[in-house]
Amino acid sequence: VKLYSDPASGNVYKPMLLMAHLGMEYAHIPTTWEDGGTRAPEFLRLNPNGKVPCIEDGDFVLWESGAILNYLARDTPWLPDAPRLKAQVLQWMFFEQYSHEPYIAVARAAMHYDAPGPARDRKIASKGSGGEHALAVMEQHLHACTWFVGDAPTIADIALFAYTHVADEGGFSLAPYPNIRAWIARMQAISGHIPIGPVSD
Amino acid sequence: VKLYSDPASGNVYKPMLLMAHLGMEYAHIPTTWEDGGTRAPEFLRLNPNGKVPCIEDGDFVLWESGAILNYLARDTPWLPDAPRLKAQVLQWMFFEQYSHEPYIAVARAAMHYDAPGPARDRKIASKGSGGEHALAVMEQHLHACTWFVGDAPTIADIALFAYTHVADEGGFSLAPYPNIRAWIARMQAISGHIPIGPVSD
Repeated sequence: VKLYSDPASGNVYKPMLLMAHLGMEYAHIPTTWEDGGTRAPEFLRLNPNGKVPCIEDGDFVLWESGAILNYLARDTPWLPDAPRLKAQVLQWMFFEQYSHEPYIAVARAAMHYDAPGPARDRKIASKGSGGEHALAVMEQHLHACTWFVGDAPTIADIALFAYTHVADEGGFSLAPYPNIRAWIARMQAISGHIPIGPVSD
Repeated sequence: VKLYSDPASGNVYKPMLLMAHLGMEYAHIPTTWEDGGTRAPEFLRLNPNGKVPCIEDGDFVLWESGAILNYLARDTPWLPDAPRLKAQVLQWMFFEQYSHEPYIAVARAAMHYDAPGPARDRKIASKGSGGEHALAVMEQHLHACTWFVGDAPTIADIALFAYTHVADEGGFSLAPYPNIRAWIARMQAISGHIPIGPVSD
């Protein structure tokens, strides 16, 4: 498998973390917005939406981190086979992409990439209530559950872990969320865990 | 199946359209933001994220339109079984939720629900380039394909159809996108098709 990747991206980190757990070998093809790689014609032929991650598995091309996680995790314990569990995995993955990432990841990206000033401050402030809402939903769910779906970690945990554990980099404190902090520690304790890559300066 | 629903929501229309095609019976439970239903404690016990659609199938509760479509379409022609096709269905469904709906559906909602004025105009204008980008990605894909994945309609088509065919209600003209218009006509010609519900005034 070839992984078109940007080490700073939490969405890229998701398949990297899964493949680390699965012991899968893959080739990195660095492709970032900063170096123009995601807008290059040869990359747009693979993903017309111009985003990483994107994978090539032989002649099969797939983009969208959520789709890639489901594809790579098929027939492994990271994606349960029972229809109801499988549906709940997708529920939390769609929640992450719609109600979590656009606040928590976008605030983090603004802190790293936008020029300091009032425009950046307004952008980050506009993400506050949506991000806190997403964290509150997670906190409540983890009150009764060890993992997001079923009784073992799944790709739903990987999808939510990627940006949650670095939420502070976007200005979100996890101090009010003890269940989330305990779950983060459980994720990091799984054998094979790898950290997210550094954000380039 | 019980469907917690708001007739104005394209996200609710997605499972309604699928169930119409599948000939599935279900009970509507009207639950809207306007009437406070999505913020009621008894609904938040089902979906702590406070959004419709949400379904109950016996004691099984599921929310997020993308997860509901995958659950209801399992073992039907609307969700192919081959791993690569199934992954591509998810790719387009995650694309829809991240790169399409937040522009095209949010502009439509602003036109319907926000008070006319400069704030609404700015909000709608801020959705323009993202929405046009999503439509351009779809247009290009449909140049070579009849349906988004494989050679028959899938839940990826349903997910993308819901807000695309009413994109004009958010100020997006489909005139520059002949492939999209032809695909919309193909979707509407499938036996069993039902229209989206009216937006309440």
